[in-house]
Amino acid sequence: KRNRPMAEHGVVRRVSEMMVGTFVTITGEESVKEAANRLLKGNTNHLPVIDAENRLIGIVTTFDISKAFARDEEDQKVSEIMTRSVITALPDEPVDLAARRLQQNNIGALVVIDTAKKVLGMLNSYDLGDLVGERWHK
Amino acid sequence: KRNRPMAEHGVVRRVSEMMVGTFVTITGEESVKEAANRLLKGNTNHLPVIDAENRLIGIVTTFDISKAFARDEEDQKVSEIMTRSVITALPDEPVDLAARRLQQNNIGALVVIDTAKKVLGMLNSYDLGDLVGERWHK
Ligand SMILES: C[S@@+](CC[C@H](N)C(=O)[O-])C[C@H]1O[C@@H](n2cnc3c(N)ncnc32)[C@H](O)[C@@H]1O
Repeated sequence: KRNRPMAEHGVVRRVSEMMVGTFVTITGEESVKEAANRLLKGNTNHLPVIDAENRLIGIVTTFDISKAFARDEEDQKVSEIMTRSVITALPDEPVDLAARRLQQNNIGALVVIDTAKKVLGMLNSYDLGDLVGERWHK
Repeated sequence: KRNRPMAEHGVVRRVSEMMVGTFVTITGEESVKEAANRLLKGNTNHLPVIDAENRLIGIVTTFDISKAFARDEEDQKVSEIMTRSVITALPDEPVDLAARRLQQNNIGALVVIDTAKKVLGMLNSYDLGDLVGERWHK
């Protein structure tokens, strides 16, 4: 049942409809302190790390900052503490597939990217609350 | 429609079915560093803060640790950086109501408590991924 939940009912919701299009990013060369500042200003837990061509190369979260602090490793660069294999979504994906990816990986957000790895937005798990237990409505 | 999503269909899922029953806690007297260590060991972003009678008095998250670090306030006690008005859920609540509370408050987890404010578990937004876009099935 879980593999064709929406085949015969109503509208398929896409990631692009539920994602947040405003987000902050950082480069790998910046400091852990700067990452913490940017997370605070952005009021977010998730900071995509991009290269000079704006392509996604990692993610640094408040969990990573807290971990670096716990280990006295806060004197590092973002590239040294970031997670390199980022779990992503494409804008046209059905949102329930993305929601399951969040669950399977125990993470709070997916980075939404295009095929050139350019960041388009963030899909936060809490932003899907309205869709819990319902089929899509228009 | 959103206000009676499950009235006439199938099973109502309760918070207790979806919450995680293993969690770590901390007291307000402990240091921010100890909180960061405990978050790391518990592999979690959310640490309920309890008093001597095991009652919930706050929450400290990796966001709060990262914020304290950004502001050079990491030399504080947990009680000084915690959020005091904790957003909670009761174990018997329908999970879709809790999911909407996560969304309305832009937070990743609710603390599940009993009527005596004792912590029973955590409800993580990513753990609801399986319920996105579906009605409950047994
Ligand atoms: C509002 S969130 C901001 C992060 C952003 N919503 C995100 O995840 O991208 C951060 C704040 O929420 C607070 N918080 C998290 N869970 C909470 C809960 N269950 N009750 C009250 N405050 C909570 C934390 O203490 C922290 O100060």
